[in-house]
Amino acid sequence: MEFAAHVNGKKAGILAEDFDLSAVVDVEPLPPVVTADDVVGSKDGKKQNGREIVLGRNVHTECLEVTEPDANDDFTGDKEAYMASVLARYRKTLIERTRHHLGYPYNLDFDYGALAQLQHFSINNLGDPFIESNYGVHSRQFEVGVLDWFARLWEIEKNDYWGYITNCGTEGNLHGILVGREVLPDGILYASRESHYSVFKAARMYRMECVKIDCLMSGEIDCADFKAKLNQDKPAIINVNIGTTVKGAVDDLDLVIQTLEESGFTHDRFYIHCDGALFGLMMPFVKRAPKVTFKKPIGSVSVSGHKFVGCPMPCGVQITRMEHINALSRNVEYLASRDATIMGSRNGHAPIFLWYTLNRKGYIGFQKEVQKCLRNAHYLKDRLRDAGISAMLNELSSTVVFERPQDEEFVRRWQLACQGNIAHVIVMPNVTIEKLDDFLNELIEKRSTWYQDGQFQPPCIAADVGNENCGCALHK
Amino acid sequence: MEFAAHVNGKKAGILAEDFDLSAVVDVEPLPPVVTADDVVGSKDGKKQNGREIVLGRNVHTECLEVTEPDANDDFTGDKEAYMASVLARYRKTLIERTRHHLGYPYNLDFDYGALAQLQHFSINNLGDPFIESNYGVHSRQFEVGVLDWFARLWEIEKNDYWGYITNCGTEGNLHGILVGREVLPDGILYASRESHYSVFKAARMYRMECVKIDCLMSGEIDCADFKAKLNQDKPAIINVNIGTTVKGAVDDLDLVIQTLEESGFTHDRFYIHCDGALFGLMMPFVKRAPKVTFKKPIGSVSVSGHKFVGCPMPCGVQITRMEHINALSRNVEYLASRDATIMGSRNGHAPIFLWYTLNRKGYIGFQKEVQKCLRNAHYLKDRLRDAGISAMLNELSSTVVFERPQDEEFVRRWQLACQGNIAHVIVMPNVTIEKLDDFLNELIEKRSTWYQDGQFQPPCIAADVGNENCGCALHK
Repeated sequence: MEFAAHVNGKKAGILAEDFDLSAVVDVEPLPPVVTADDVVGSKDGKKQNGREIVLGRNVHTECLEVTEPDANDDFTGDKEAYMASVLARYRKTLIERTRHHLGYPYNLDFDYGALAQLQHFSINNLGDPFIESNYGVHSRQFEVGVLDWFARLWEIEKNDYWGYITNCGTEGNLHGILVGREVLPDGILYASRESHYSVFKAARMYRMECVKIDCLMSGEIDCADFKAKLNQDKPAIINVNIGTTVKGAVDDLDLVIQTLEESGFTHDRFYIHCDGALFGLMMPFVKRAPKVTFKKPIGSVSVSGHKFVGCPMPCGVQITRMEHINALSRNVEYLASRDATIMGSRNGHAPIFLWYTLNRKGYIGFQKEVQKCLRNAHYLKDRLRDAGISAMLNELSSTVVFERPQDEEFVRRWQLACQGNIAHVIVMPNVTIEKLDDFLNELIEKRSTWYQDGQFQPPCIAADVGNENCGCALHK
Repeated sequence: MEFAAHVNGKKAGILAEDFDLSAVVDVEPLPPVVTADDVVGSKDGKKQNGREIVLGRNVHTECLEVTEPDANDDFTGDKEAYMASVLARYRKTLIERTRHHLGYPYNLDFDYGALAQLQHFSINNLGDPFIESNYGVHSRQFEVGVLDWFARLWEIEKNDYWGYITNCGTEGNLHGILVGREVLPDGILYASRESHYSVFKAARMYRMECVKIDCLMSGEIDCADFKAKLNQDKPAIINVNIGTTVKGAVDDLDLVIQTLEESGFTHDRFYIHCDGALFGLMMPFVKRAPKVTFKKPIGSVSVSGHKFVGCPMPCGVQITRMEHINALSRNVEYLASRDATIMGSRNGHAPIFLWYTLNRKGYIGFQKEVQKCLRNAHYLKDRLRDAGISAMLNELSSTVVFERPQDEEFVRRWQLACQGNIAHVIVMPNVTIEKLDDFLNELIEKRSTWYQDGQFQPPCIAADVGNENCGCALHK
C-alpha cells in the first residue's frame, strides 16, 4: 500500500502546506496555452513580461493518487487512517487559505451547519425548475423560491419570467447569450474588451459574429466606440457588465439603451444580457447606481451565487423573459428536445444554500453588507494612497485596483488576482478592517524592502488607472 | 412574518409530503414546451396519449417563498424555528423519496460522513485542473488524482490526456462534441436516435449539421443505416453511446470504426465521442463488453460521477487527448481566451467525493458492484417475465425495460422513468433484491387490479422490445 503522493516518481509529503507553488499571470481562469512540448510533472515555466507563467500539467506534481485498496485494509484500517490523515491536513490548508484571501469575489463568511444533514442525499433538479420530473429527490421548491426573490429584485412578474439556478457565472452568460441568439439568429454580439472571457467563449461556441468595444479608463464600456461600431444592418446582442472582472466597473445600461435607440434600433432588434456576476446583487442596494430592472428593455440578467451571497459551491442565478424561452422552445422541434437549461442534471444543494441565506439576511441584511463592503473598500483605497501606492476604486464598486506587488510570494499568500502591472482586492463581507490592516501593514513593510536599494521603481500604472490615481515617480 | 408556502395566494402546508404532484411523460429531463397560455400556479395539464403532461409553472404551487426577516427575529427566534422545521420536514421527504427510487441511474448508497468537515469551505477549481490559479481554496490535487484513475481505466498515458471533472453528463457531451468540432470544423455530427438529448442540444448550440441514425431493437446504433447516411465529402463527428438513456444499449464501437474505415474515412477525418454517462464505468468490469479505450481511434470519453459512483451532487468526468486540447487552444487566439473547460468556476467538492469513493472501492470494489447489479437486473427481468409482464434486458446492461404501469401514482411512488408505453428500472448498487421484491410484489398485486375487469389489456410493447420480449395477448 502506497500512502504518499508521487512527484515525478519520487515520494513526496502527502500534502504540501501551500498548494500554490506556482502563480498564473492572468486574472481569473485564463489558463496559458498548453503546448505539445510540455512534460508531465514538469514545473518548468516560461518567462512572460518578467514573470513566470506555468504551462501544462504542473498539478501532477501535487496530485493525490488514487490507490487500489489492499485485501486486508478492512482488517488493518490502514486505508481509513490514510484518508483521514489526508483530509485532516487538507482541512488545515483550507482554513489557512480561506483566512488569507483577498483577490477573488467569494464571500467566505457563511455558516451552513444547519444544512449538513442534507449532504447525504443525491439532490438533483434535473431539467427545468418549473417542471417536475419523476425523480423525487429534488429541491425545486427551494429553487423557485430563490428565483422569485431575484425576480422581485429585478422587477419582473412571476408570470413573465423564467429562470434557473446555474453552476456558475459562466453558465449564466452562456445561457443569456444563447437566448439572445435564438431570439435574433443573425444578431452580432457586442461586448466591451473588459467583459468576462466567457462572453467571448460563447461567441466562439455559438459561431456568432462578435465585435469588441473599447473601454473608458474606469473599465466601463465606451458608448462612443459602441455607436461607431454598431452595424445597423443586423440585430444587436449586447453583453452589459454589471461589474467587470478586473476593475469592478459598471457599464451604463441607460446609455447603452440610448445609443441603440439613437442608432435606430427598435426594441425587437436588440437583446441585452446583463452579466451581474458579482455586482448584480450589490447594485440594487447602492444609491445612485443605474438600476438593473426588467422594466427596461433587457433580455436577461445573471448573477453568481457563490460570490456576494456566499455558498460552498459555485452557482448562479439566471433570469430571462418567459416570452424568450417560448421562442427557444418552439425552435427545437426538430430535435425532439425541449429543455431550456444548458445543463441537464443540476445540483440540488445550491438552491437550498441560497434559500437559507436569503431567508436569514433578507434585503435589509444585504443592504447592510453592501454598505460595509463599500465603506471598507474606501478605507483600503485611502490607506493605499496615503502610503504612496497607486490605487483606484470605482464609485459603485468594492474592487480596489492597485499597483501589483513585486513579490509573487506575497501575491500568492494573499491570493491576489493580477493582470499586467495591476492587482486587485475585492472587499467582500468576510473582509474586515482588521484583515485589511494586516494586509496593508504587511504590504507597506515588504514594499519598503522591494524598492529600498533604488534599483527598481514602483511601476507606473497610469494607463490602467489614470494619471490621478497613479503614485509613480512621474505622476505622484 | 409569513411562514407558510403559498398556493395561488392561499396558504398551504409548508411542505407537502409528496412533492411529485404531477408526472411528466418523458424519460429524463425533457420538459414540455411552455406556451404563452400557461398560467402561473396553474396545475392544469393537457392530455397526451391519454396521460397528463404538465405545462409551465406548476412548481410555483409548491414553492417555498423567501421572506424578509422581521426586526425582532433575532430576539424571538421565530425565523430560525421556521427554517429548522422546513428543513426537518424536507429531510424526511428526502429519506422517503430516496428509499422509493428505481427509475434513475443514481447510486444513492454512499456515506460521506468523513467529508462533512469540508462543507464549510468555498472550494473552487476554477479553470483548468492542471493549471493553478491564485485562488488557494481548491481541490486540484484530488481532481487530478481522479482523472489519472480514469485515464488508466481508459488506457491513455498521463502525458497524452487532458480532462476535467464536469458538472454533469451533459457538460461532458457538450465538451466532447465541441472538441470534435474544433478539430474538424466542417464535420457533420452523427448520433443515433436514442442518444441523450444533450447531443442534439450541442448540435444546435454549436450550429453543426446533424444527422440522426436509426437504432436496432436493442437501442444500439444501426451501422447499416449509419453507412448509408455517411457523407464522404465532409469529416464525421460521431457520438457513440456506452449505454443509452432508455434501454441501456451499448453501441458497437468497433463496428462504428469499421464502418468509417470501410467508407474510406482515414483517422484524421473522424472524431468519436463516447458518451459513457452510466455504463462508461460499468463496461470495463463486464466480460465480453466491447472495450472503450484510447488505443482505438476515439477522441473523448465522458462518464457521470453521480451515477454509478454515487455522489450527493451531479458531476462527471471528461477525458480527451492532449493533442486535441492543443488544437482547441491554438484556435482561440483572437479571443484572448485560452480556457479549455466549458464552465469557469468549478465545484471543488465533487472531486473530493469521487476521490474518496475511488480510493475506498478501487477497481475490485467496482467490479463486485457491477456484478451484483447485473445479477439483480437479471433477477428482476426474470421475475417480470415469469409474472407475464413484457420485459427486456440488454446483455451488457442493468437497465430493465418493461411495460409501463397503468397507474401514474405507482410510477411516481417508485420514481420510474417512462417513455411512451415503456418504463425502466435501472438496477444500481443501492437496489437490493429485497427492494426489487417489494417493488415486484406491489406491481404484480396492483397490476392484477388494473386489468381485472377486462376493460383494459396490457399494452403491446413489441415495437419497443421485440416480439420475443413482449407478453401482450398477441405475443405471449
